[in-house]
Amino acid sequence: MINSQLLNPKSIVVIGASNDLRKAGGKMLHNIITGGYKGNLFVVNIRERNVQGIKCYKSIQELPNVELAILSIPAKYCPQAIEDLAKYKSTKAFIVISAGFSELNEEGNKLEQLMINTANKYHAALAGPNCIGIINQNYHGVFTTPIPVLDCNSGCDFISSSGATAVFLMEAGMQVGLRFASVYSVGNGNQISAEDYLAYLDEKFDKQSSAKSIIMYLENIAKPQKLLKHASSLISKGVRIAAIKAGTTDAGSRAASSHTGAMANSDMATRALFRKAGIVYCSSREELISVASVFSYKKLTGKNIAVITHAGGSAVMLTDALAQGGLNVPKLEGKIADELLEYLHTGSSVSNPIDFLATGTAEQLGIIIDYCEHKFDEIDAMVVVFGSPGLFDVENVYKVLNVKMDICKKPIFPVLPSLVNAAKEIQYFLSKSHVNFPDEVTLGKALCETYYTGTPTDEAQMHTTINTEKIRSVLEMPREKNGYLSVAANNIILDELKIERAKEFLATNKEQALSAAQEIGFPLVMKVVGPVHKSDCGGV
Amino acid sequence: MINSQLLNPKSIVVIGASNDLRKAGGKMLHNIITGGYKGNLFVVNIRERNVQGIKCYKSIQELPNVELAILSIPAKYCPQAIEDLAKYKSTKAFIVISAGFSELNEEGNKLEQLMINTANKYHAALAGPNCIGIINQNYHGVFTTPIPVLDCNSGCDFISSSGATAVFLMEAGMQVGLRFASVYSVGNGNQISAEDYLAYLDEKFDKQSSAKSIIMYLENIAKPQKLLKHASSLISKGVRIAAIKAGTTDAGSRAASSHTGAMANSDMATRALFRKAGIVYCSSREELISVASVFSYKKLTGKNIAVITHAGGSAVMLTDALAQGGLNVPKLEGKIADELLEYLHTGSSVSNPIDFLATGTAEQLGIIIDYCEHKFDEIDAMVVVFGSPGLFDVENVYKVLNVKMDICKKPIFPVLPSLVNAAKEIQYFLSKSHVNFPDEVTLGKALCETYYTGTPTDEAQMHTTINTEKIRSVLEMPREKNGYLSVAANNIILDELKIERAKEFLATNKEQALSAAQEIGFPLVMKVVGPVHKSDCGGV
Repeated sequence: MINSQLLNPKSIVVIGASNDLRKAGGKMLHNIITGGYKGNLFVVNIRERNVQGIKCYKSIQELPNVELAILSIPAKYCPQAIEDLAKYKSTKAFIVISAGFSELNEEGNKLEQLMINTANKYHAALAGPNCIGIINQNYHGVFTTPIPVLDCNSGCDFISSSGATAVFLMEAGMQVGLRFASVYSVGNGNQISAEDYLAYLDEKFDKQSSAKSIIMYLENIAKPQKLLKHASSLISKGVRIAAIKAGTTDAGSRAASSHTGAMANSDMATRALFRKAGIVYCSSREELISVASVFSYKKLTGKNIAVITHAGGSAVMLTDALAQGGLNVPKLEGKIADELLEYLHTGSSVSNPIDFLATGTAEQLGIIIDYCEHKFDEIDAMVVVFGSPGLFDVENVYKVLNVKMDICKKPIFPVLPSLVNAAKEIQYFLSKSHVNFPDEVTLGKALCETYYTGTPTDEAQMHTTINTEKIRSVLEMPREKNGYLSVAANNIILDELKIERAKEFLATNKEQALSAAQEIGFPLVMKVVGPVHKSDCGGV
Repeated sequence: MINSQLLNPKSIVVIGASNDLRKAGGKMLHNIITGGYKGNLFVVNIRERNVQGIKCYKSIQELPNVELAILSIPAKYCPQAIEDLAKYKSTKAFIVISAGFSELNEEGNKLEQLMINTANKYHAALAGPNCIGIINQNYHGVFTTPIPVLDCNSGCDFISSSGATAVFLMEAGMQVGLRFASVYSVGNGNQISAEDYLAYLDEKFDKQSSAKSIIMYLENIAKPQKLLKHASSLISKGVRIAAIKAGTTDAGSRAASSHTGAMANSDMATRALFRKAGIVYCSSREELISVASVFSYKKLTGKNIAVITHAGGSAVMLTDALAQGGLNVPKLEGKIADELLEYLHTGSSVSNPIDFLATGTAEQLGIIIDYCEHKFDEIDAMVVVFGSPGLFDVENVYKVLNVKMDICKKPIFPVLPSLVNAAKEIQYFLSKSHVNFPDEVTLGKALCETYYTGTPTDEAQMHTTINTEKIRSVLEMPREKNGYLSVAANNIILDELKIERAKEFLATNKEQALSAAQEIGFPLVMKVVGPVHKSDCGGV
């Protein structure tokens, strides 16, 4: 039950706020203050008079009414605090960052149930417990660092089952310039699950202000239908979604179960669900970051990539990765290619990869990009790989790249590999709201994955009613000797599930075969039915 | 033709040295000087009197004798310079960093051939052209930065077809603490190829002083037999080798051809060669860095991994990656597990992953590692994932980890994901000659790859002489109607190639079948030979 009090509270109280920034209740308050929260901010701590410059209440009873309460107190005190806040202070939203609930033991589970029942009784939202909190445009309600710069234009919404994984992903993502619009830590998520956050993002989607991409780290998909519905809906609105579903192996599933109490989902089922919804499937933080970085750029709408570089080796590896993943690096030749070649140093190659050599200049890069944007119609997108051997700075090159990425209609993906030699220039580049792909092959794989993750299955098709009675009756029919269903029975099931299959007729003589052929049309295949195996009589 | 003058020269001259550090001849000299080269260093530049504090000769004629010459002058002047140096100054080794040779055009190709013929005439080594140079313990002979800290104990030798790729790989590798023992840039490599450097490392291998791992970036394997021989030999001496062979796809191969003039090698053939030699196959700089990082630690000798963490999500993803790659995260239970659990905070799990919670301490990490090292006999290695939510520093944790990695017999692989929150502590950790794996899944995949890349095929087996005549005669025998070879003909070929196959006999009655069974021994399989397909009469 997500409400506006949870995501856009007019007032917040931190229960268990502290002056010690090494404590969760201290860092939480600190983050809210430094995040410039504009509503009324209260703190409760029985042992303090003033916490981080804010007057401290000794008890909940003394507080004025407050919309959102963030609880950083031992688990056993949480249910009563929620009851008091909801009953006497009209509090309608809670974030419980405390641990020691259902993830711990049966006793904790009872506390969690009690707490959730209380929240439900008062129609209040309850995020967590065992979570790091929420970061959005309205407040920075987490007890962890770093807090990324929030950006709804090019940043992604991030929903995570695991708080630490959210932190580690933000840390790694920020290194390459990935931006975030909001972060939702689910924790045990018994009242508000990852699917619920997704549903909320879908229902409140606004073409102007909402983020255009969503990434998720999931250990459990408790409500697959809900995930499917809202992911499909968001994607059909132009949002792009990628997710990790961890715990795919038996061992990993045991690990997930001890971590957040997640139930196992089969990896096959997850992949099928993601494919149906149009979600890009990822297996690691790094993959998810790469895909999210691809999302932050213009959408790839065709297969033909121009690889533009001054460094041959990177171009070779990238070209291999793209070709292996099903994208093309089409050969460029003819009049336009020859024309372009004239602008480049002797020895350059424009046959794609477009290699303008170690001596290539910023002006030449600009010209190459102009040719790919305006003259090579077959090119759908560009990857520019440009590092530095350490002889001179490459700021002018990155300035050209920066402008071209802004104005070109075709997507341009930057690989800036010189993390040492061009550290300063890469920082400049990232400051322009760009994301960098330090490894060309990682980018290549992410591009292929995003390109080949299709659009969601048509909603009408999803809601086809299936005659389960009829299917059940077929399954209950007597089987063949070997225990298999007959071909005829299989066909009934396929037809009921609206799974298309080739037309077929049984013909026992030439005339029947000819008449069936006319009905089916060509091309067709004749197969042998009988005791002899098809291959023994030259059949197929 | 690699000689001591190339790798350990008593004197070096830089032809085309410059005071401008933005020029290759300037940066090259600068690197040699700042690298503390101990031999005699000379420079030649017709327009200078003093270059970077060194007296400058106007021509080669004025020089004293010199062992190694590094040429940073236009391609067209190189052949004559080599002739003069070899003939009058007894120069026995050359590094040509200039470009404009066979990679450029036919004219350049002729220059290159002329230059190589000259070098060969004087029995001189010629590295390059079109390369960045050589870095080893004796001198820093490259015109690029960064120069890694060289370390023969835990660093790797690095052979690269591409200079820029070598730079980018060093830059990315240094971020995670990867160390290098030497770097050889091959360039066009017509006299000294990547295989030649490998052969040299093999022939001069010294158990005390040689690096124990080698990484390679290859665009061309011109001498596969040589690669196989020396890679196998090195690996049998305890060295570990990983390599990228780029240009595996048609498009990538075209890219490689325009880059270094490499010929296509089939990816299947490369993989087979690597498998036979025991080389770990990699597809990206990032993979190669991860595998080289694994090489820098103790060797994994068994499949059972303990995953130790305070961050559940990372443990789940890592466990998935290990299980998918064929390694085990075995469940830990029983008396010892219960005993360990008592030392940890309530709510911790020791069932593997060993999750000691966000509140886990450095002391607890030490105890867990002690248990895995000394008490859980089934555990072969440990991965420790430990980051920071930003509440307090984790220096004491990394100190414990540092000591344990030093003293434990079982390998310990560290995943320190908090690139922002624990940036300072990670730097401390890397300063202790450790490598970090920022992404747990990337480590998991590299561990599986290295574990499952077997030892080289037995040398005796490699040198089995094959009766190609006999195989040819079988291939030329009349085929069956369908164009296939008969089973009997296949068997002759398999036997000639010493490929083991199951024993088989044809039996046409019960007695023959029984007698054949006695000869073969059990278990055995009976298959039907004849016109009826095996499945039609209940056969297998």
